[in-house]
Amino acid sequence: VAPVITLTTDFGLHDPYVAAMKGVILSLNPDARIVDISHGVRPQQVEQGAFILGSACGYFPPGAVHVAVVDPGVGTGRLPIVLSAPGAVFVGPDNGLLSAALPEATRALAAGGPARVPLPEGLAAHVLAEPRFQRHPVSDTFHGRDIFAPAAAHLSLGVRAEEFGPELREVVAVPPFRGELQPDGSLAGRVLHIDRFGNLVTTVRGDQVEGRRVTVEVCGRRIEGVTRTYGAGEGLMAVTGSAGLLEVAVRNGDAAGALGAEIGAPVRVTFA
Amino acid sequence: VAPVITLTTDFGLHDPYVAAMKGVILSLNPDARIVDISHGVRPQQVEQGAFILGSACGYFPPGAVHVAVVDPGVGTGRLPIVLSAPGAVFVGPDNGLLSAALPEATRALAAGGPARVPLPEGLAAHVLAEPRFQRHPVSDTFHGRDIFAPAAAHLSLGVRAEEFGPELREVVAVPPFRGELQPDGSLAGRVLHIDRFGNLVTTVRGDQVEGRRVTVEVCGRRIEGVTRTYGAGEGLMAVTGSAGLLEVAVRNGDAAGALGAEIGAPVRVTFA
Amino acid sequence: VAPVITLTTDFGLHDPYVAAMKGVILSLNPDARIVDISHGVRPQQVEQGAFILGSACGYFPPGAVHVAVVDPGVGTGRLPIVLSAPGAVFVGPDNGLLSAALPEATRALAAGGPARVPLPEGLAAHVLAEPRFQRHPVSDTFHGRDIFAPAAAHLSLGVRAEEFGPELREVVAVPPFRGELQPDGSLAGRVLHIDRFGNLVTTVRGDQVEGRRVTVEVCGRRIEGVTRTYGAGEGLMAVTGSAGLLEVAVRNGDAAGALGAEIGAPVRVTFA
Repeated sequence: VAPVITLTTDFGLHDPYVAAMKGVILSLNPDARIVDISHGVRPQQVEQGAFILGSACGYFPPGAVHVAVVDPGVGTGRLPIVLSAPGAVFVGPDNGLLSAALPEATRALAAGGPARVPLPEGLAAHVLAEPRFQRHPVSDTFHGRDIFAPAAAHLSLGVRAEEFGPELREVVAVPPFRGELQPDGSLAGRVLHIDRFGNLVTTVRGDQVEGRRVTVEVCGRRIEGVTRTYGAGEGLMAVTGSAGLLEVAVRNGDAAGALGAEIGAPVRVTFA
Repeated sequence: VAPVITLTTDFGLHDPYVAAMKGVILSLNPDARIVDISHGVRPQQVEQGAFILGSACGYFPPGAVHVAVVDPGVGTGRLPIVLSAPGAVFVGPDNGLLSAALPEATRALAAGGPARVPLPEGLAAHVLAEPRFQRHPVSDTFHGRDIFAPAAAHLSLGVRAEEFGPELREVVAVPPFRGELQPDGSLAGRVLHIDRFGNLVTTVRGDQVEGRRVTVEVCGRRIEGVTRTYGAGEGLMAVTGSAGLLEVAVRNGDAAGALGAEIGAPVRVTFA
Repeated sequence: VAPVITLTTDFGLHDPYVAAMKGVILSLNPDARIVDISHGVRPQQVEQGAFILGSACGYFPPGAVHVAVVDPGVGTGRLPIVLSAPGAVFVGPDNGLLSAALPEATRALAAGGPARVPLPEGLAAHVLAEPRFQRHPVSDTFHGRDIFAPAAAHLSLGVRAEEFGPELREVVAVPPFRGELQPDGSLAGRVLHIDRFGNLVTTVRGDQVEGRRVTVEVCGRRIEGVTRTYGAGEGLMAVTGSAGLLEVAVRNGDAAGALGAEIGAPVRVTFA
């Protein structure tokens, strides 16, 4: 069976960048099965990229290679890495984008914002340093094409992660997506993502509110209770969405537009 | 030969939803050949989804499985179905989205708007009820991932439609796309779709006006005659487009922008 | 190994057009491996299409068939062609879109704008005239589906270019992308493309400025020097981008937005 290589970037689909990566992969491994996760991450929004990759990567077959490039530091000191996790391998810049590979307890060590965390047992990280697995000359502006795509192709051909370069004991992680417990017992979160329907995906997890009577506050509005499905509510509602996170939605409407909400807007959940 | 599975949704390509469906399909059938028809259906616009699916599905090889998800009723009472037609199988919610599978005479029974119609001979519909062909737990918000994608994968692996659940005698259809004959002999239609070029695709069929001297009225403008090709006309023109429907276009320009036209705008065709 | 067929169009991904082409290809050659280069070329912008195709096609494996459709003249006199180059075959309208197949010296013969140029040795062009390699009836509005997609599929199945129709000695080319040397020693160029990050890709080549002290002027702003990478500069900067062309960028920002720049805006490079 052909190996699956997924791509997650902030490149969009209008420019030739994604196609260049696909051409490089297919030139090295013509049997690779390339699947786009998203190229619509907002430019340089590493955390949003980590969310989108993390929301999709778990559905792919074991052995998938997940390449992600949201890389404001391209050409500077940040390291290009391969992160090997049970059942999947992640390739990209060491800036937190690959946090989906890390268990929540590890990410929790980066509670205050992106930070370097020690890798737990069962995970390994290596620098993509080996020139024979790169495209030359390596440009200073497009490691997706010259470092990450070739690395993914070589991994899909059976090259082992340790052949790419030195091992790292720590990688950069973004904090886990969950509401933070406040002294008054409420949860503090924020809008993590706005989807095509205008639904506000928050950092509060559905299992943090399940089975409890809650009030969700966002953009000066209060929502009582959590609804089971978008079609069951009326007006503004809170729903546990398909990523397991609390969402604010409007039935057949655009919650972000209605509320004027932006990514990063604070969300507060209180319990009755 | 690997089976073809097509996808048509209103999910857009920025969010992780489409990728989750692809991952689920590939996890069940790694040989599936997944092709996107469109993920740009306007949110919850079932009729537009039916048009886009219907404009593309006929070009795919026999045996293709067409999955479509424009599903404002997800998690409510509407049924998830598989609709088996000669040469192709359609999977999605029973809300009219799969109308491309139905002959025009059947769709005509829904003349006034989406309605339940009896299935003609040669077509069969079954409810997607069998838990072993679903992803568990089945979410209330994302049947694309948990019911429709797995169903398509299992169909592509040879599971027969009748194994999924009880047979239905009726399904929901949207009316056929054609101009309605008025008492004065004119045709009444409307703008069904606006394409990337700003061309207005109408509900009037090209073969309803072919070979006749016509005047097309839309947004307060009158167009005399039907032009053979976009490049042959000047200014505003009427053309029979590639879907066989009458279109209003501007040579190298944006008719929708020029006219301020929206989907649903009335179109009238009179004959000399 | 399955043959690669790439697609570059101005069709966007919302409409059914691209999917119709893919269905036609897969119906003729179920083993074809179809890769999108871009469907985001601005409507009818042939030169931008030539740039995007040219920026990606070189990364694909030898033997790839590159189909491009930016075709304001569809249904009029312009010829549909196959252009055979060493290692790749190009299919599309003869309007300059396929210029990536031509060496720079040949394109330079079209210095003043798109023009017919003689084909150099090693390249061959044939008209796509043979009805048995077309889809019938051939529409007047969608040669992508009825002529170009079938041609690509047949080429991928081993049909030779000369079987499609008469040979052409000349094809239409767009001028090469490079700054024009002015009498005062400066280079005159223009904005060729604006990418998703808002970077302005200019017609000036990086190797025209490399190793020299330059001032870049665009939209009334002056930039001193060329920076190595986006992350290394501050504010407005000039960088040689991944396509080998000079770009104007803002670190983690949107240069096109900041400057109010449009495609076609003049760019001037002076040397110290």
